[in-house]
Amino acid sequence: MKVAPVIKTPYLLFLGDAPDQLAAKVAQGIKDWRPEFAVGQLRLPGCGADLGIAEMDLATAWDAGARTLVIGVANRGGVISAAWKVVLKEALEMGFDIASGLHNLLRDEADLVEAAQKAGRQLHDVRVPSEEYPIANGVKRRGKRCLAVGTDCSVGKMYTALAMDGEMRKRGLKSSFRATGQTGILVTGGGVPLDAVVADFMAGAVEHISPDNDDDHWDMIEGQGSLFHVSYSGVTMALIHGGQPDALILSHEPTRKHMRGLPGYALPTLEQLRDTALPLARIANPDCKVVGISVNTQHMSQEEADSYLAALEARMGLPAVDPFRNGAERLVDALVEIS
Amino acid sequence: MKVAPVIKTPYLLFLGDAPDQLAAKVAQGIKDWRPEFAVGQLRLPGCGADLGIAEMDLATAWDAGARTLVIGVANRGGVISAAWKVVLKEALEMGFDIASGLHNLLRDEADLVEAAQKAGRQLHDVRVPSEEYPIANGVKRRGKRCLAVGTDCSVGKMYTALAMDGEMRKRGLKSSFRATGQTGILVTGGGVPLDAVVADFMAGAVEHISPDNDDDHWDMIEGQGSLFHVSYSGVTMALIHGGQPDALILSHEPTRKHMRGLPGYALPTLEQLRDTALPLARIANPDCKVVGISVNTQHMSQEEADSYLAALEARMGLPAVDPFRNGAERLVDALVEIS
Repeated sequence: MKVAPVIKTPYLLFLGDAPDQLAAKVAQGIKDWRPEFAVGQLRLPGCGADLGIAEMDLATAWDAGARTLVIGVANRGGVISAAWKVVLKEALEMGFDIASGLHNLLRDEADLVEAAQKAGRQLHDVRVPSEEYPIANGVKRRGKRCLAVGTDCSVGKMYTALAMDGEMRKRGLKSSFRATGQTGILVTGGGVPLDAVVADFMAGAVEHISPDNDDDHWDMIEGQGSLFHVSYSGVTMALIHGGQPDALILSHEPTRKHMRGLPGYALPTLEQLRDTALPLARIANPDCKVVGISVNTQHMSQEEADSYLAALEARMGLPAVDPFRNGAERLVDALVEIS
Repeated sequence: MKVAPVIKTPYLLFLGDAPDQLAAKVAQGIKDWRPEFAVGQLRLPGCGADLGIAEMDLATAWDAGARTLVIGVANRGGVISAAWKVVLKEALEMGFDIASGLHNLLRDEADLVEAAQKAGRQLHDVRVPSEEYPIANGVKRRGKRCLAVGTDCSVGKMYTALAMDGEMRKRGLKSSFRATGQTGILVTGGGVPLDAVVADFMAGAVEHISPDNDDDHWDMIEGQGSLFHVSYSGVTMALIHGGQPDALILSHEPTRKHMRGLPGYALPTLEQLRDTALPLARIANPDCKVVGISVNTQHMSQEEADSYLAALEARMGLPAVDPFRNGAERLVDALVEIS
């Protein structure tokens, strides 16, 4: 069985000529969630993004311990430009591996492949699986698992898992964030790009990245899609059954007008999400519980958010927080309670 | 976008040196469900299977109209033997395409690939997708769709869809069987091997094989897996949401002791299956109804089967039949009722 090479940390974050901060979203995520991996940033002329960390050239970053150059940015026009390639090749020659979440793959660039081979370095395209996964066997694994399920895609499931993992570690509790998407993989250096795995092996891939562990260890598994999103619900289903979660967090974005990319589809209520996800999760883990609600309130004022969360909490009888805005303390309290 | 070449019909069914009838299951399915595609059979010395149709050599079959040699048999030891290759190459030279559901792929055999190229013929490996599928858009399509969902894998969902399609055609009603697995594809000459599609495109592949159609046309979509089978539930979910079924058939095998391949997992009741599948189906199609139950009674006596079906029918308030044993008339009646 082919096993994925681990992406070596820490990183030098390559921002290229990113036009603005939004284009550097992946690099920003790494800096926000794993600042210890973000040794420095390398920017090209015209770059409009800035992570507010040390500016470094390749040699300085190498001396500071960086071992992978992470392309943490969207590229203009979907091509890896000549200007980028000068830097990428120099990095390979110097001993860096390169990791990328770009749509166009490093492995499709003959000159980069040749340079990597010559230097004995790795090119990591995190959008494609680099591993062969087994078919799920459903065997109950030791350790505990938490999964966020959303009323829709892109409602903050990854941020919820990362915030909870951060809070667990702060308390000295055993926790691992398990990445299932490209940003999560680049943030933490490993995981599975679940949406690119072949159907039969999806649940097996989730079992594989969340193996047996200490009884008091929690995996914070990154959620994907939504059971209510007809384009991606199969991926969510595989996470629920492969993940065997002990705890579900319901995730929601209250200002969304319709399901992402599906104008004809309304969002479900949080009650519908609970009543759909929990019985499905109990097929794989009869002890599974819904323990809290994470709400992405970025499009609400502080006042609106506070009153929305208070009303939701009374309605659902569960802690309801925006973990990015207000911290994940109460969600982690809820996990500790069922540990 | 790459489009799948259609497998040309009718077929010459190649049984090779199949040790017994069971090894020729795929060929048997073609002969049972599409006898008009089964021009003849070609057997090698030592073959223990017999479909009871005309014995033909390549030239006779060609003259009888056959255009694809279908390998409708499991191969011994997982290798395509030298004896087989003699026939396969001769077939290519004569003008036949070759279609195969073998685990080892025709395209991995350099000599067959070369012979096919030289002759300008197609090699169809139906276990791997030969097409690029879009991401599902969830847009409501015209025409009607029926999907069988099972309490477990391999409980007769394909046979149910084929039997209902046959009964529809017999009545002069508009119907198409839509294959989602390798046997179904070989039976009908087209479809998608859904379990081999990349996760993000599963629901889109189902939308793609069941496009807009006449208002009074029914697609009988071949089901896969089970919502209750933790290894494959994501594939089932994609069928439910990509398929937008108007009608669900619940499929069950009453003598199964546990979920196939999962000794720790009990089968759900048919009530649990109904109450899980229907709300999920209504996300994509609010008008979806559960219209009947198909039971695989092959391991029951006629008497046991009759009494089981009668009790089930009373319990669930739905027609309950074994469509293979007793015909699909009553299931089709139920479809007609909601048309």
